[in-house]
Amino acid sequence: MKKVGIVMGSDSDLPILEKSIDILKSFGIPYEVHVYSAHRTPKEAIDFAAAAEENGFGVLIAAAGMAAHLAGVIAANTTLPVIGIPCKSQCFDGMDALLSTVQMPSGIPVATVAVNGGANAALLAAEILAVSDPSISEKLKAKRAADTRTVLEKNAAVSQKFTN
Amino acid sequence: MKKVGIVMGSDSDLPILEKSIDILKSFGIPYEVHVYSAHRTPKEAIDFAAAAEENGFGVLIAAAGMAAHLAGVIAANTTLPVIGIPCKSQCFDGMDALLSTVQMPSGIPVATVAVNGGANAALLAAEILAVSDPSISEKLKAKRAADTRTVLEKNAAVSQKFTN
Amino acid sequence: MKKVGIVMGSDSDLPILEKSIDILKSFGIPYEVHVYSAHRTPKEAIDFAAAAEENGFGVLIAAAGMAAHLAGVIAANTTLPVIGIPCKSQCFDGMDALLSTVQMPSGIPVATVAVNGGANAALLAAEILAVSDPSISEKLKAKRAADTRTVLEKNAAVSQKFTN
Amino acid sequence: MKKVGIVMGSDSDLPILEKSIDILKSFGIPYEVHVYSAHRTPKEAIDFAAAAEENGFGVLIAAAGMAAHLAGVIAANTTLPVIGIPCKSQCFDGMDALLSTVQMPSGIPVATVAVNGGANAALLAAEILAVSDPSISEKLKAKRAADTRTVLEKNAAVSQKFTN
Amino acid sequence: MKKVGIVMGSDSDLPILEKSIDILKSFGIPYEVHVYSAHRTPKEAIDFAAAAEENGFGVLIAAAGMAAHLAGVIAANTTLPVIGIPCKSQCFDGMDALLSTVQMPSGIPVATVAVNGGANAALLAAEILAVSDPSISEKLKAKRAADTRTVLEKNAAVSQKFTN
Amino acid sequence: MKKVGIVMGSDSDLPILEKSIDILKSFGIPYEVHVYSAHRTPKEAIDFAAAAEENGFGVLIAAAGMAAHLAGVIAANTTLPVIGIPCKSQCFDGMDALLSTVQMPSGIPVATVAVNGGANAALLAAEILAVSDPSISEKLKAKRAADTRTVLEKNAAVSQKFTN
Amino acid sequence: MKKVGIVMGSDSDLPILEKSIDILKSFGIPYEVHVYSAHRTPKEAIDFAAAAEENGFGVLIAAAGMAAHLAGVIAANTTLPVIGIPCKSQCFDGMDALLSTVQMPSGIPVATVAVNGGANAALLAAEILAVSDPSISEKLKAKRAADTRTVLEKNAAVSQKFTN
Amino acid sequence: MKKVGIVMGSDSDLPILEKSIDILKSFGIPYEVHVYSAHRTPKEAIDFAAAAEENGFGVLIAAAGMAAHLAGVIAANTTLPVIGIPCKSQCFDGMDALLSTVQMPSGIPVATVAVNGGANAALLAAEILAVSDPSISEKLKAKRAADTRTVLEKNAAVSQKFTN
Repeated sequence: MKKVGIVMGSDSDLPILEKSIDILKSFGIPYEVHVYSAHRTPKEAIDFAAAAEENGFGVLIAAAGMAAHLAGVIAANTTLPVIGIPCKSQCFDGMDALLSTVQMPSGIPVATVAVNGGANAALLAAEILAVSDPSISEKLKAKRAADTRTVLEKNAAVSQKFTN
Repeated sequence: MKKVGIVMGSDSDLPILEKSIDILKSFGIPYEVHVYSAHRTPKEAIDFAAAAEENGFGVLIAAAGMAAHLAGVIAANTTLPVIGIPCKSQCFDGMDALLSTVQMPSGIPVATVAVNGGANAALLAAEILAVSDPSISEKLKAKRAADTRTVLEKNAAVSQKFTN
Repeated sequence: MKKVGIVMGSDSDLPILEKSIDILKSFGIPYEVHVYSAHRTPKEAIDFAAAAEENGFGVLIAAAGMAAHLAGVIAANTTLPVIGIPCKSQCFDGMDALLSTVQMPSGIPVATVAVNGGANAALLAAEILAVSDPSISEKLKAKRAADTRTVLEKNAAVSQKFTN
Repeated sequence: MKKVGIVMGSDSDLPILEKSIDILKSFGIPYEVHVYSAHRTPKEAIDFAAAAEENGFGVLIAAAGMAAHLAGVIAANTTLPVIGIPCKSQCFDGMDALLSTVQMPSGIPVATVAVNGGANAALLAAEILAVSDPSISEKLKAKRAADTRTVLEKNAAVSQKFTN
Repeated sequence: MKKVGIVMGSDSDLPILEKSIDILKSFGIPYEVHVYSAHRTPKEAIDFAAAAEENGFGVLIAAAGMAAHLAGVIAANTTLPVIGIPCKSQCFDGMDALLSTVQMPSGIPVATVAVNGGANAALLAAEILAVSDPSISEKLKAKRAADTRTVLEKNAAVSQKFTN
Repeated sequence: MKKVGIVMGSDSDLPILEKSIDILKSFGIPYEVHVYSAHRTPKEAIDFAAAAEENGFGVLIAAAGMAAHLAGVIAANTTLPVIGIPCKSQCFDGMDALLSTVQMPSGIPVATVAVNGGANAALLAAEILAVSDPSISEKLKAKRAADTRTVLEKNAAVSQKFTN
Repeated sequence: MKKVGIVMGSDSDLPILEKSIDILKSFGIPYEVHVYSAHRTPKEAIDFAAAAEENGFGVLIAAAGMAAHLAGVIAANTTLPVIGIPCKSQCFDGMDALLSTVQMPSGIPVATVAVNGGANAALLAAEILAVSDPSISEKLKAKRAADTRTVLEKNAAVSQKFTN
Repeated sequence: MKKVGIVMGSDSDLPILEKSIDILKSFGIPYEVHVYSAHRTPKEAIDFAAAAEENGFGVLIAAAGMAAHLAGVIAANTTLPVIGIPCKSQCFDGMDALLSTVQMPSGIPVATVAVNGGANAALLAAEILAVSDPSISEKLKAKRAADTRTVLEKNAAVSQKFTN
């Protein structure tokens, strides 16, 4: 099975990516986790991206804050799908990271998820791998069904308690 | 080969999606194009999404403006990867559509590209299909190489003309 | 008397809607409360909206955060008036939810109140029902008069204490 | 049948309100149109609002741009439902008007529609009157069905032309 | 000497206005403090504004948050200079109040100060009264000189401690 | 009678200030007009401000765009009331100029009007001079009455034409 | 004399950089102009940056729009001072490019100028080279003096024409 | 060696500038620290800037919040390179300070770094001095190498712990 590569620009983004890791682990999808800064370790970030396809990765996830160039730098060096997670940092509630991640110029897409959207990045990675792997597709559907049940159980509880 | 489903919320978004169509056509990837509004034809949008996997689609692209719910509605009804294109409309330069598309709650990801990013949506779709189809991967690499050459030719022209 | 339907996208929005509930209860207006996510339980949300008129509802209130599609999904499936409450979540102070709720395309209006505006959503619902029910109109006028008295009492206290 | 009161802060907002007027006329709902500025004719705006219920109005629509206080001033002087249309003016794409209209304090709701949302304001007014008037409800459903057909016709045309 | 009228939309704004009060008191300028909501006590707010000139006021200060209409409503009912203080509330860091206060239409100016700018509102009021009252002008100049000395003392301390 | 000083950061701001000039001229208030840049002619801007009170000015108006420091620089060098007009330039619809003008630190207020608010700046200047000059106060009231009549005439025309 | 390196992400940014070029030419500062995209020609952009010091450059200017990573990528590969020009493109008035350029993480500064600030980027480059080259310093002072004279001439014309 | 001048608008900005001081100290670059407000001590700020070149400064750093005019005022009075640090204050996460600092008009550049970017301001100052001082250039390269090593060590730790 193809691996998911997870790269964060700083280890301070780890809590967001642990949500990604939990989902991949529960789906049985192999992954590799790295801390590579687009600016402090550009060579390593680029080398990782450039070799990713050959090294058995199918999708890459890149998380960064502020002027979040990491996903773009990764995407510029591979044609694997790259998922960008804009991280909220000290200012602007992550709007700087969102615009730096999503507003990519024509030619180099980054599949951007919500600010701090670690769980959805992993789910999107799973959806991408599921295009050619029905077993992951089944797990995604099972998770959806479980999520639905959870909401309906909450609905039952809330509806009963509050409806007049 | 799996198809790409392209859905727009209004036919006024067609110029943006023609950029997607041109790329898919040039890559030889089959696609289907629809106008389904999340609000005016919710049933048709949902039915299309719910049957998409069974109907041979591998990726879906959804484009909408303003309170752009289309990509979210599509994504809520399939576990195929869904790419969202926020479209610029009369106000806010597409910020309303960007936030409505990208800020999806945990569980239902939308792979969001830049505002009006029709070309990148198609390239991302191709990258996703290429995970299991090396022929598309080759075409993506060829396009990247061509894009690089184009920039370098412009560089040669500009550099020669302007460097003092 | 027609009922008010209250739907929240997540039970984390409950504190905002308890302000709605308190007002409806104090006005003697019957209501039903549900947790239905536009994305995790789309079918239930749609079914609730589609059957609402027949089930004796006169107005629906929908509260959601982030890419807040709930009010729009509800509104797309009924011609009852739908009131949207954008909820503040982790980022952007609710601007994502506000734009996702208010910027509806032509044809499907959502009556949007302030971010986290649970009380005003209920008052607006009461105003709508009061169009054909003078008893609610009287209660609204009584509440206005009471609110006015409260401000004037505060004015008396503050004015006396601080005026030089 | 109760009338809809339409108030604009300046006659430069008329093109937006003509979209409201067209819809009300097509639905056979009686209406009255006024130009009252919250700041230049506060007395007339307030008197209109204060007497609206008595004068046979069921819903009021208020449209204004910039620091758009009109809907709030109207709402402060009646308990009829008040629909606010934020109008785009020279700056900020109507964000100033949107925030001035929607962010009402607790106690005085304004049912806000999209920036320049003249058509939706009228549809919302119709939905409100329809709560107690099934004939308007039928017209709303007929319009929804017609809108759906229009989208599906566009879908047929676009799908046929562009699907590969 | 003409009085300064201070009006706040809610007594929760009092901490901001206490900064205004402290300055006026220290300058020996008479003032009156009121809590009048533009929406919950529109009549009282308007009556206060309309009678302000006759009642010996020279300048009015109005502070409000959210869709902050108070300064505009006051300004619409007097030709005295009206100073608006946008107050930060639950969302948007006061941007809603700033735009609602400053973006007044032509004809009815509001002299807007910074968000939560209670001190500057009082200083501006003093500057306005000082145009015809040299004794206030002297006090303003003395305060400026004192502020300058404070900064220079801080400079001396910081410069000595940190300069290498 | 005290003069109004009008300073613009660039002669490209002249169209906005001609609206100020027209109003002052119609009120018979003497004024002086200057082009002084806070950055290109700081000395002249400061000298003008520092000598303004002595030179018979009662109020100063400063208009600038982008990082609009002019009003702040003027205000830092006089205790006369300073009115700031943020001017819309190439980007951000004047938000850069608005924040640069209104967000003054405690101690140095700038009375900020709407973006491009040339007319309101002059009216505010007149209101400030009117505090001690009843003849200007009368002219302000006459203008308000005329503005009211204009709106009411428009109301008569629009109401008659459009009311059904 | 050290050279200035000018890099633009796309030749569509050329009009902005021609303002830079004009100033450098008029100052007699040697420069080299390139079109290198951070995403389409990452290798060339990096190689240029990495060799810049050795190749006789003293300062680098990088201009890009949207998710403007160019200045950051350049800065990550050299310790020469890097000046970033955020370019306005189709959306958000250049706010995406501004945040992508200025919000650099600790360790890799980019000296950011105003959106589309081609002239100021060149002047800043000249100021940097002038730190060790008094002849450039003289030219900068001469340009400042000329700018001052231009403003004062405009002031003379405007002041004479408009002062009443 | 030329000195770096550090000016803050208020001693509340000191924590941000201590990050600048730490870096300059570690590089052995001499510096002077001052608290000068653009508005409360304009004369001292201007005098410091005007005499800076003569007094042996090579670069100036100016930090301020809100309507942050300090860097602009400094830059208007010297042709030394001026680095601006926008400081986050009570509102808008520093967006007011960022726009007030970066959006300088043509002729007077300010080299703006990220909001609260004290460390990067010092590094940029060092880069500027390094253009003519290879010893500083060596220290910058050593710091870069150390930063890279730190990231790679974190990568090793995180990668080992989390990779599945």
